[in-house]
Amino acid sequence: MKVQKLTLADAKFERSPGQDDDIFTANLVDERHGGPITIGYGKFGPNQTLDAKIVVHDVMIVLEGRLSVSSDAGTVDAGPSEIVYMPKGVQVTIRSYEGGATTAYVTNPHWREAEDSR
Amino acid sequence: MKVQKLTLADAKFERSPGQDDDIFTANLVDERHGGPITIGYGKFGPNQTLDAKIVVHDVMIVLEGRLSVSSDAGTVDAGPSEIVYMPKGVQVTIRSYEGGATTAYVTNPHWREAEDSR
Repeated sequence: MKVQKLTLADAKFERSPGQDDDIFTANLVDERHGGPITIGYGKFGPNQTLDAKIVVHDVMIVLEGRLSVSSDAGTVDAGPSEIVYMPKGVQVTIRSYEGGATTAYVTNPHWREAEDSR
Repeated sequence: MKVQKLTLADAKFERSPGQDDDIFTANLVDERHGGPITIGYGKFGPNQTLDAKIVVHDVMIVLEGRLSVSSDAGTVDAGPSEIVYMPKGVQVTIRSYEGGATTAYVTNPHWREAEDSR
């Protein structure tokens, strides 16, 4: 495997599995590439809500906009350059505000494989 | 483990191991927390150069400024919201420009344990 640069311009956004809201993911590195990590970008439209059981260790870095993440640890609110770490097994509700949000994410192991095998 | 928000304000920056340049790292989640992922922030002063053998899978998200990363795959240049994925085993030279740079990083497994056991 070689060093790779990843950019938003390379991201092909798709709807998150099992939902039809304005929430999109774009894996750029994942199980197809032979490493243990998935890397991608996420996009949330305005005022969206995503309820999810987190099936892998999931690191979300906010690049633009703001998101809130509610769990049994309470609610955190994250803006640009802030990171929300969602460990495997937690139940979360992620909400965007009027301005929507753009994120980068890194997961270990690969989230799509974990979702598919549920 | 619970959902955690991480911010630059929480980061306690230290010099990278084995070098005395103006390059600093701050782990916020790592081997002390029981998961498989290290998460932190990095800071590069102006015009710094770091030569490193990458001992873990290392994802670097540029938050501010610009960096170049040279390897046997060539040289890539990354600015805000761009990501450089450095797979385990690659040899890289990371350079900052006049404005320095701030990054977020995610590694699997934990980079500090891997460095310590070299």
